[in-house]
Amino acid sequence: MTDDRRSAGTPTLEDVARAAGVSRATVSRVVNGVRNVDPAIQEVVRQAVSVTGYAPNRAARSLVTRRADAVALVVSGAGTEAEAGREGSGPQRSGASGGPPETPGGPGSSFTAQVFADPFFGRVVTGVVDYLRPRGMHPVLMFAETARARDEVVAYLRQGSADGALIVSTHAEDPLPGLLTEAGLAAVLYARPARPVRISYVDLAHQDGARLAAEHLLAVGRRRIATISGPLDVPAGQARLAGFRDTMERHGHPYVPIAEGRFTQESGEAAMGRLLAEHPDLDGVFAANDLMAMGACHVLREHGRRVPEDVAVVGFDDSSAALACRPPLTTVRQPVEAMAAEMTRLLLDRLARPGSPATSVIFEPELVVRASA
Amino acid sequence: MTDDRRSAGTPTLEDVARAAGVSRATVSRVVNGVRNVDPAIQEVVRQAVSVTGYAPNRAARSLVTRRADAVALVVSGAGTEAEAGREGSGPQRSGASGGPPETPGGPGSSFTAQVFADPFFGRVVTGVVDYLRPRGMHPVLMFAETARARDEVVAYLRQGSADGALIVSTHAEDPLPGLLTEAGLAAVLYARPARPVRISYVDLAHQDGARLAAEHLLAVGRRRIATISGPLDVPAGQARLAGFRDTMERHGHPYVPIAEGRFTQESGEAAMGRLLAEHPDLDGVFAANDLMAMGACHVLREHGRRVPEDVAVVGFDDSSAALACRPPLTTVRQPVEAMAAEMTRLLLDRLARPGSPATSVIFEPELVVRASA
Repeated sequence: MTDDRRSAGTPTLEDVARAAGVSRATVSRVVNGVRNVDPAIQEVVRQAVSVTGYAPNRAARSLVTRRADAVALVVSGAGTEAEAGREGSGPQRSGASGGPPETPGGPGSSFTAQVFADPFFGRVVTGVVDYLRPRGMHPVLMFAETARARDEVVAYLRQGSADGALIVSTHAEDPLPGLLTEAGLAAVLYARPARPVRISYVDLAHQDGARLAAEHLLAVGRRRIATISGPLDVPAGQARLAGFRDTMERHGHPYVPIAEGRFTQESGEAAMGRLLAEHPDLDGVFAANDLMAMGACHVLREHGRRVPEDVAVVGFDDSSAALACRPPLTTVRQPVEAMAAEMTRLLLDRLARPGSPATSVIFEPELVVRASA
Repeated sequence: MTDDRRSAGTPTLEDVARAAGVSRATVSRVVNGVRNVDPAIQEVVRQAVSVTGYAPNRAARSLVTRRADAVALVVSGAGTEAEAGREGSGPQRSGASGGPPETPGGPGSSFTAQVFADPFFGRVVTGVVDYLRPRGMHPVLMFAETARARDEVVAYLRQGSADGALIVSTHAEDPLPGLLTEAGLAAVLYARPARPVRISYVDLAHQDGARLAAEHLLAVGRRRIATISGPLDVPAGQARLAGFRDTMERHGHPYVPIAEGRFTQESGEAAMGRLLAEHPDLDGVFAANDLMAMGACHVLREHGRRVPEDVAVVGFDDSSAALACRPPLTTVRQPVEAMAAEMTRLLLDRLARPGSPATSVIFEPELVVRASA
């Protein structure tokens, strides 16, 4: 600590030491979080810090520890420079379900706006923040949907402004995880990357979740069941469809009508319209996320179908949309907050033990039965 | 810049200078964003930075510039230590409308979860990020709903980890704005503080917005109009109710039934239930935010009332809830993203010119006519 750099009048380490009646070295140890200091002395020093208004300069400390004590939370995409700040047809998530819904900002809205229009991202932030806060850390929020923005993230980590990155990809083909691992930077992903990358991640057992949905629809007596899938170029969309079809065929239902959506409410409405037009007698629908399930409920009601009496609807995620929907959705819970907290734990663990091998943690989904099925 | 501190093998400023064929001083000027460097030379240096993989150490630079080039985005509350991490009855916003709805996490969920369950906060983040990104800056996300968390925010700014704070208060009695201004730290508020504090803020002309809602309901022929107000202990709740009643009485309607809500969908449902029980013949409702309006629409439908044929409903905010609702809500638009961007501009302006006086920027609301009224 070089407090000499501080301007006159600003309280120094010496001021704190005097106020606490302890040595400068002891204050330094407490302020820098070194262990093995008597708790009573720690408390005395902390009170002296509070009384004097002393604040250690974090930049100076970072030069000593080589740690920023900060992590970047990056929402990334696969866009190119030409797309200048937003993805062509709107983000699609590779691992999570539920892309951004139609936003008040409309199709011209920024990537950031599209991202936050989906309740999923707020849940990720919640999990990350709730894990970091008790550790005195705060996430730096970054977006990286263009090549330039990805370079900025790499540079930001290289220059030590953050110690590592938590990445939520909106596209299966996102190059950021590969860029970070090649640069030897610490990073953890939410959801399995589409292509093999030596990086830690958390994910959900999507197929098991879809199985729960299929079994529930069959258990409540539905026999003409269709599905609104997520985008089939992303792993979560594929896995949920595969799990659903597998379960249906195991129960003797070889044919399942499918309409592909984009994890948005709007796309769920359009998909439901197509399914109803071709299969007006359907009595059950599994939508691969809650926003699409909510859109399906709207269209079913507009076509005079009661939910669940005429058509039972099951969603996926258990996001805020599940409770906002009328009737409230029976859905498959993805514990996003817990998964995001675990992703953060994996990153801090990696920072504490550099060189430890990449790992994966897979969460189990649960069926949440409400009124829609 | 003291690149001597960098470990061997890491590219230095000298490496970049050699690759670019310019002086070390020129590289330093470009890297540190000093003006008056020929654009062609800037480009050459940037390419050399890219080729060599050089990354300036931000901690080292911060020691020279005394600037972190970071701002904190703080969601604060008025809780005490005893409430340990979350507010008693859930956050209520002082300036914005719409508190967090019922969350999947339930009443035991964290303050963070409650905050992000409301689409409002995602819109704030969007506006802040969209303003900061082109300037190479990223927000550090912090929460401060307890006395200890507020102290942490003050310490974080004092120690120079961020240059200033953008504050979104969830309670009218939030002490954070006062703490920051007393400490001489740069901060800007979203929404007028409940008590006078010498701090800059952005806000909406809430009364004018409520006037637009009242005039629209009257213009479409409604005469038995009730209102679901926001919490009356927060300025925005008060102002929207005052603007609505003023307009009604100017049009010869001295009596307006009121049910107070808490800016959540759930509270809107409860309020609508009370209004219908006491005034079964009502034909128009102004809800002081979209989440409560959505709750009102649910309850009206459950009671066999068609929206808008039997009861016209107008919301406030134009959040994602307005589009998710069926029918889509006629509402008063609060341009949250633009307001958050302006809040950020005010802070950077303040940082560029320390000592400039506090200012306020008030945005005009607009009526957005959709299907519900």
